Amino acid sequence: MVTAPLRWQCTARDGAARAGLLVTPHGAVPTPSFMAVATLGGLKGVTMEQAAALGQRIILANTYHLALRPGAERVRRLGGLHAFCGWDGPMLTDSGGYQVFSLAAHRVIDDEGVTFRSHLDGTLLRLTPEESIRIQRCLGADIIMAFDECPPAAAARVVVEQACARTARWLERSRAAWLAAEGPGGCATQALFAIVQGGTDPGLRAESARAAVALDLPGYAIGGLAVGESADERQTVLDAVVPLLPEDRPRYLMGVGTPLDLVEAVARGLDLFDCVLPTRMGRHGIAYTDDGPLRLKRAEYAEDPRPIDDTPSPARRLSRGYLHHLLKAGEVLGGTLLSLHNLAYYQRLMARLRAAIRGRRCAAFAAQFRARYRELGDAAVAAGAEPAESGE
Amino acid sequence: MVTAPLRWQCTARDGAARAGLLVTPHGAVPTPSFMAVATLGGLKGVTMEQAAALGQRIILANTYHLALRPGAERVRRLGGLHAFCGWDGPMLTDSGGYQVFSLAAHRVIDDEGVTFRSHLDGTLLRLTPEESIRIQRCLGADIIMAFDECPPAAAARVVVEQACARTARWLERSRAAWLAAEGPGGCATQALFAIVQGGTDPGLRAESARAAVALDLPGYAIGGLAVGESADERQTVLDAVVPLLPEDRPRYLMGVGTPLDLVEAVARGLDLFDCVLPTRMGRHGIAYTDDGPLRLKRAEYAEDPRPIDDTPSPARRLSRGYLHHLLKAGEVLGGTLLSLHNLAYYQRLMARLRAAIRGRRCAAFAAQFRARYRELGDAAVAAGAEPAESGE
Repeated sequence: MVTAPLRWQCTARDGAARAGLLVTPHGAVPTPSFMAVATLGGLKGVTMEQAAALGQRIILANTYHLALRPGAERVRRLGGLHAFCGWDGPMLTDSGGYQVFSLAAHRVIDDEGVTFRSHLDGTLLRLTPEESIRIQRCLGADIIMAFDECPPAAAARVVVEQACARTARWLERSRAAWLAAEGPGGCATQALFAIVQGGTDPGLRAESARAAVALDLPGYAIGGLAVGESADERQTVLDAVVPLLPEDRPRYLMGVGTPLDLVEAVARGLDLFDCVLPTRMGRHGIAYTDDGPLRLKRAEYAEDPRPIDDTPSPARRLSRGYLHHLLKAGEVLGGTLLSLHNLAYYQRLMARLRAAIRGRRCAAFAAQFRARYRELGDAAVAAGAEPAESGE
Repeated sequence: MVTAPLRWQCTARDGAARAGLLVTPHGAVPTPSFMAVATLGGLKGVTMEQAAALGQRIILANTYHLALRPGAERVRRLGGLHAFCGWDGPMLTDSGGYQVFSLAAHRVIDDEGVTFRSHLDGTLLRLTPEESIRIQRCLGADIIMAFDECPPAAAARVVVEQACARTARWLERSRAAWLAAEGPGGCATQALFAIVQGGTDPGLRAESARAAVALDLPGYAIGGLAVGESADERQTVLDAVVPLLPEDRPRYLMGVGTPLDLVEAVARGLDLFDCVLPTRMGRHGIAYTDDGPLRLKRAEYAEDPRPIDDTPSPARRLSRGYLHHLLKAGEVLGGTLLSLHNLAYYQRLMARLRAAIRGRRCAAFAAQFRARYRELGDAAVAAGAEPAESGE
């Protein structure tokens, strides 16, 4: 393996699930671990101090968004992303590949790369594997991602095949650009993760995984999920890909998901996660609990004196009635308090999963969780949703 | 004096300025002290934990707004305002009298009280001295305010005279309602402050002050300022009123003001203040410093690596360039970080004023502050302003 500034050490196994410690230049993170999303270098409505106090240990920021605003060079001149946003801990940047999916109406793909027309002001942004790695070097996260093409779940097989082939070629170019980097911010301080694509086709997924594993990288991600596929399709993909990934490298499931999604994925051997749901749903008045999401704007909570649950966050001492009041009055603080709760809930869930793995009761934990947790109906999710790139 | 659950003890004098300790049923507050504004029971974008960590010791909430949403009875059923909003410290509620000014287009005054047509949905809210005190009893703050009529600075003399006369009559009724209250939330646990009105006329101000002082209340407020008068007119009013107020009672200057306004008022013997500026201006991208407000959205700050200043808040470790980026990108976090800075700046300014008074160098501190501090131009203030009752 290429020398990389990242180690992942397995500390416990329970079936397919693993607990471990991910050691980066900015500190260690117990896994399984959930990364909060700081799209533009800030969590939505939540300070880094607050996130750290809730137990947040690693965060994610978005290359595409930061390249547009404020620009990678500006971040570099202001000391790199850690200093820029005031986060001393481990950090990961994505590559912009996800925006190939989420901003499909704003980009043109060719074999060399992707040209985006800015969703903000129409200026052009050209991302190639080399440029994505260069930008991520300016940003300076501990983990950087290969530039990939992420097709939608409903894409025709030929489209997925082409995206897989591009992703494989771009991975080689991403790796070469990463290895060529020297000095601070080069491959001595940043670890490159590969991304496995392949849509919902187990065969294409396996092919993509084998190509990535052959390059012997510090970590492996499964991309192209949470893009419209069903939960069953997602589990099928995980079951096909995970056994092909090296046992001794961290596995990152990109952009997933709800608390139940995380439980299912941890049980299948995934280690790292990111998702905008805790903060986005918080802003929309939704609080996660073991019973599923609570929609606190509903009239039934107007005089409910109970806290959301016993998750340790600033919301724990507040009644559902108070949170309902803030949300109904349109107070930003309501969304902030629910975001704090949700981030804390996710962190505690990961801690419970780690403990379950250590105690060899992960399957029982997952079964209990599955039996109790109820997702929102699709209509409710749609009502709470906002455009994928509206800011996080 | 009526037995009241509030004591103010003077600990140092320096010219007209005083330092002291205000003791309430929810704890003691060193004065001079600035109250952050929690209009609807929450600070704008800032949690109570954050405010406490910045040194905030006493907060203010608005009777009119809480009576509309979520309703005083609901707050009472959810444990009173302290429990409702998760603030264990001292708290003051205003009486709704300020909305007689700020919502002039939405109300009709008669000698009995004021009928508001809700700025939200058109429903009617009737406030009288008795009803204001009843609502404030439901809310349960440590300090409650008499119901007054607040005329605009530009009002004709006859209007101001009439407002003064009404304010005096309503003060007697407010006092009677306060004294009649029994049990928890009655006058054994809440202290009533009178409000002096009289516009910019020193004679009317003096008359209003004498009438209030004759009722021997636990504290005295100067209302009807920051309603359009000039700084000179305001100083004239303070010079006319302050000498008439009892030396041994706290003096509260309502709704004022900028850091310089606070320095001027403390030097003239005022003890308590409240203002929406720290959070409102923060949301609009303005950070207070000893040099005056910085408009951080300006391009000149885009690559400024310095922090705003050395005020201890979560913003201190962040560059002006980062804050500029968040503000330009419309991230709520930018406004939150500036609100945190501004609240911390106000708290530290009050601490510096208290220390100056104890050190008998208040006049020198004020002179230095005055020489350095530059207010925004009126146009800039107008650009940063929002309708008076848009939510705080």
